[in-house]
Amino acid sequence: MTVLGLGAMGRALAGSLLAEPANTVTVWNRTPGRDADLVARGARPATSVRDAVTAGPLVIVCLYDHASVHATLDPVADHLRGRTVVNLTTGTPNEARELATWAERHGIDYLDGAIMAIPSMIGTPEAAILYSGSQPAFEEHRQVLDAWATSTYEDADAGRASLLDLAMLSAMYTMFAGFLHGAAMVTADGVSAREFAARATPFLAAMTSAFEADAEIVDSGSYATDGQTLDWSDLSHLVRVSEEQGVDPAPIAMVEQLRRRQVDAGHGGDAFARIYESLRRT
Amino acid sequence: MTVLGLGAMGRALAGSLLAEPANTVTVWNRTPGRDADLVARGARPATSVRDAVTAGPLVIVCLYDHASVHATLDPVADHLRGRTVVNLTTGTPNEARELATWAERHGIDYLDGAIMAIPSMIGTPEAAILYSGSQPAFEEHRQVLDAWATSTYEDADAGRASLLDLAMLSAMYTMFAGFLHGAAMVTADGVSAREFAARATPFLAAMTSAFEADAEIVDSGSYATDGQTLDWSDLSHLVRVSEEQGVDPAPIAMVEQLRRRQVDAGHGGDAFARIYESLRRT
Ligand SMILES: NC(=O)c1ccc[n+]([C@@H]2O[C@H](COP(=O)([O-])OP(=O)(O)OC[C@H]3O[C@@H](n4cnc5c(N)ncnc54)[C@H](OP(=O)(O)O)[C@@H]3O)[C@@H](O)[C@H]2O)c1
Ligand SMILES: NC(=O)c1ccc[n+]([C@@H]2O[C@H](COP(=O)([O-])OP(=O)(O)OC[C@H]3O[C@@H](n4cnc5c(N)ncnc54)[C@H](OP(=O)(O)O)[C@@H]3O)[C@@H](O)[C@H]2O)c1
Repeated sequence: MTVLGLGAMGRALAGSLLAEPANTVTVWNRTPGRDADLVARGARPATSVRDAVTAGPLVIVCLYDHASVHATLDPVADHLRGRTVVNLTTGTPNEARELATWAERHGIDYLDGAIMAIPSMIGTPEAAILYSGSQPAFEEHRQVLDAWATSTYEDADAGRASLLDLAMLSAMYTMFAGFLHGAAMVTADGVSAREFAARATPFLAAMTSAFEADAEIVDSGSYATDGQTLDWSDLSHLVRVSEEQGVDPAPIAMVEQLRRRQVDAGHGGDAFARIYESLRRT
Repeated sequence: MTVLGLGAMGRALAGSLLAEPANTVTVWNRTPGRDADLVARGARPATSVRDAVTAGPLVIVCLYDHASVHATLDPVADHLRGRTVVNLTTGTPNEARELATWAERHGIDYLDGAIMAIPSMIGTPEAAILYSGSQPAFEEHRQVLDAWATSTYEDADAGRASLLDLAMLSAMYTMFAGFLHGAAMVTADGVSAREFAARATPFLAAMTSAFEADAEIVDSGSYATDGQTLDWSDLSHLVRVSEEQGVDPAPIAMVEQLRRRQVDAGHGGDAFARIYESLRRT
């Protein structure tokens, strides 16, 4: 098997493969010299991309972005025919789909992967990698994939792994902004951010359990509730208190705006989950 | 002890007190008839607010908002002299401080409480109530407070309990918006919101563990990092993919804007937690 790209993540992926003595691992990187540690552990250094991709049936790609994948693979497309490309480079759903189409045109079996981990987690079950695209490729190379992380096959649509990954990252960054906004509200009164984290960490972790009920409501398409309504969840006092603390209310003002859009449309008696309707494709 | 206000929460608080046979519980509500169940369980119905507050040394208040607290207590202020008021009505930090000042002027011991629970949780340790204001009042009535929830005394500043509560709620609602935004991104491609929740719930719960490190960075005031930088965490592709999915990118666009403000100010090499500086009091 071949690993193209020996950045922080590519090195972790290749290193994990070398832990299995039965594996023959060929490595390549645009800038020479980044393979020293891997070669010392038994990897074979390729002399060119062509040399690298013709070493075996499985080519693992972990480069910077979509453009660098094309820059690296386009010149050797003909040599990839009949082989499998597992691309773990972060990209958008449409970029993954474009590569799947490109691969099909060149007779390449294409599997797209989205890594939900940092390099140090590779090789542990805490790391998760989502895959989509060629299911035969996923099944055939399952053993290799499972050595890196908890691996799941999502869909034949090559863009699906990326979509799920980016949707979760988007939720995560929004949560981080919410946490730092709360921290800013309390530090303005001399409470430390760590004191706030000590409370907010278990509280928000516990509140993630509300997602399931919200999701059920969203999927049902009916927002009727005898629980908390949009009217009840008026957030304007949170915006006001943020301002009173001298803190930019952007995170909570964003939520209040989504809420208000539904209330103004006459849905104040519906469940809070209805702010989904302020967001979704119309 | 007296409970003023028999809405959903006031009834839960009074009901929990009645569970202890030693307690004499007097109840009052503006609109008559909401005390029937409590009276059947042994509560004494008061004939007026004055009758209610003179029944004993401890007056518990759980009304709709700050204005309804004043509307109810102002006419009986003189009868409250020497007694303790524990106010569990949701209000802002400044409203709590205003009530503490008002109480002091009338010789009333004032404790402000922020309930982090829904009525059905009252009487269980999963419910949390934060208190601030008079520490003697908190100590003296500790047994009553502990019967409702896990109770903590926060600070002599009466506004502190409200501030911590609202900062956590603000973070929670922002997280909910992030979840529903992620859900909207994937449902646009036919993935159900429940499927998304099944992944996002453990993922976001696990990622709350990052708050502590972020808080340490914030408290230290130094954002130097050898981990993920603001430059590395470019979120513009998340905004773009959200738009490609036909989903309003408001939640993640808000985060990207906070990030960009720091990058534009020359801090791209600093830790992600630096977006705190985009938010906090300047
Ligand atoms: N690190 C993480 O925590 C993490 C987590 C999840 C996903 N990922 C994804 O994994 C991928 C790699 O990340 P990384 O952390 O390993 O990045 P990195 O350390 O910056 O490495 C980038 C790699 O891409 C190569 N590259 C860049 N432009 C190229 C081009 N035009 N042609 C050929 N090679 C090129 C670099 O080669 P040179 O040495 O020649 O520059 C290097 O090998 C990214 O898509 C990233 O989003 C990373
Ligand atoms: N329910 C929750 O999940 C929850 C959670 C945390 C905190 N809280 C807080 O607890 C407080 C009470 O909530 P709740 O759920 O019990 O609300 P609720 O069911 O709507 O009850 C509101 C209570 O306030 C009284 N009231 C309203 N305006 C009044 C006025 N001008 N003068 C006198 N009484 C007045 C109502 O009396 P009438 O019967 O005469 O209208 C009723 O007893 C609120 O501040 C709420 O934010 C509630």
